[in-house]
Amino acid sequence: MAYHLCKAFVSQGFKPQQVYARSKSKAAPFAKMGVEVVHNSAEIKNAELYILAVNDDSIADAAAILPAGDAIVVHTSGSMAMEILADYSPNCGVFYPLQTFSFEREVDFRPIPIFIEGANPAIESSLKKLASIISDSVVHSTHVDRRSLHLAAVYVSNFSNALFGIAHQILEENKLSFQHLAPLMRETVEKAIAKNPLSGQTGPARRNDKETIAAQLNLLNNKPEEKEIYEMLTKYIINKYHTSHNE
Amino acid sequence: MAYHLCKAFVSQGFKPQQVYARSKSKAAPFAKMGVEVVHNSAEIKNAELYILAVNDDSIADAAAILPAGDAIVVHTSGSMAMEILADYSPNCGVFYPLQTFSFEREVDFRPIPIFIEGANPAIESSLKKLASIISDSVVHSTHVDRRSLHLAAVYVSNFSNALFGIAHQILEENKLSFQHLAPLMRETVEKAIAKNPLSGQTGPARRNDKETIAAQLNLLNNKPEEKEIYEMLTKYIINKYHTSHNE
Repeated sequence: MAYHLCKAFVSQGFKPQQVYARSKSKAAPFAKMGVEVVHNSAEIKNAELYILAVNDDSIADAAAILPAGDAIVVHTSGSMAMEILADYSPNCGVFYPLQTFSFEREVDFRPIPIFIEGANPAIESSLKKLASIISDSVVHSTHVDRRSLHLAAVYVSNFSNALFGIAHQILEENKLSFQHLAPLMRETVEKAIAKNPLSGQTGPARRNDKETIAAQLNLLNNKPEEKEIYEMLTKYIINKYHTSHNE
Repeated sequence: MAYHLCKAFVSQGFKPQQVYARSKSKAAPFAKMGVEVVHNSAEIKNAELYILAVNDDSIADAAAILPAGDAIVVHTSGSMAMEILADYSPNCGVFYPLQTFSFEREVDFRPIPIFIEGANPAIESSLKKLASIISDSVVHSTHVDRRSLHLAAVYVSNFSNALFGIAHQILEENKLSFQHLAPLMRETVEKAIAKNPLSGQTGPARRNDKETIAAQLNLLNNKPEEKEIYEMLTKYIINKYHTSHNE
């Protein structure tokens, strides 16, 4: 996250004054962008704004080592409240870009929504300006909003990816390429985005096609966990579309 | 399926001689492409090839009404064996395009893989030529292959879409737009395609972040089915990445 944020700002001509990283192994990609990296918290400079792009359970530790002052301090978490920073700075806020980041994958920040919150309107205005440098989708948010967004993100990204992993495994065992699924995966996402996913549901469970469901469960006999997931999601879809009040 | 296949062939300058559709309401889109549509099985003309683009449980019925002869007869199903057509024509085959089709969404057929099988090499060669007119990815397949592909497709498309539906519902209840998730959904798919989804897994379950998991389960207290799905997929990811033999 820190790397991608930094890169997005640098690409817009806004170079962060400094990056602090505990681990020296993380310095190179920042240095390559011409950004100063320090590893000793005593070297952290005074600044107008600090972005704590760290894991949830490291946010308080990161805030604690900042120089005293009235700088704006924000975290980038979807699940933590802004208030966990209030002990460290009255000028706290949240700067939550909703995306999955991997070091080795470049991302285009412009379409990525950034959910901001500030302890007062002046901070919110500053954060909005800052986020607009890199994103076309800057949205004011509350903690309740971000919690819902983060939960929804777990379903569409982390859980979907686990299903992709099951499909990968099934195909690998049959010496078939996962790449065969690429057009289907892309179309499934584009269809869900273009029209409500609830109306675009297809497949054996949607049709309550018991014969195909039984045949597919049979193929999963040596995969108890994957079979359990198949059964549960099939039951979920059938209940949603074939219960009496829907027919 | 029939509509999209017909459209793909017409767009390449290969107009099907005739389309048979039981329901008159389905005639208009074919007629618009200049393709003759008939609704009475007695009007079905002799042809070199018949594509039965119908539901699995209608394949045999569709084959039964074809004029007697030695035409090639194929179905388009991922789950049915070629042999179910053998009673109707010795020259049978399978022509299975792996994609989710909706009438109202145009698709680009070129990247869509088409899995073919024929009762003999001459039929396979004909089907390969035919499929290559509309697709850049024509693959010989067995019934065992197609069953695996279809099962994998249920996970990446039907089941993922059900998860998208849950996310949609969570956001809707909080008056948040599902569109906020679009860049995340697209990146999740592209990352899984570019690198094995098993290596790209992220999220609270992947990190075994018990605090976030507990907080998210808490948000699902009034949604027992969605909570059960969260618990099962979280357990699945934790088992996969945090069991003793992986650590």
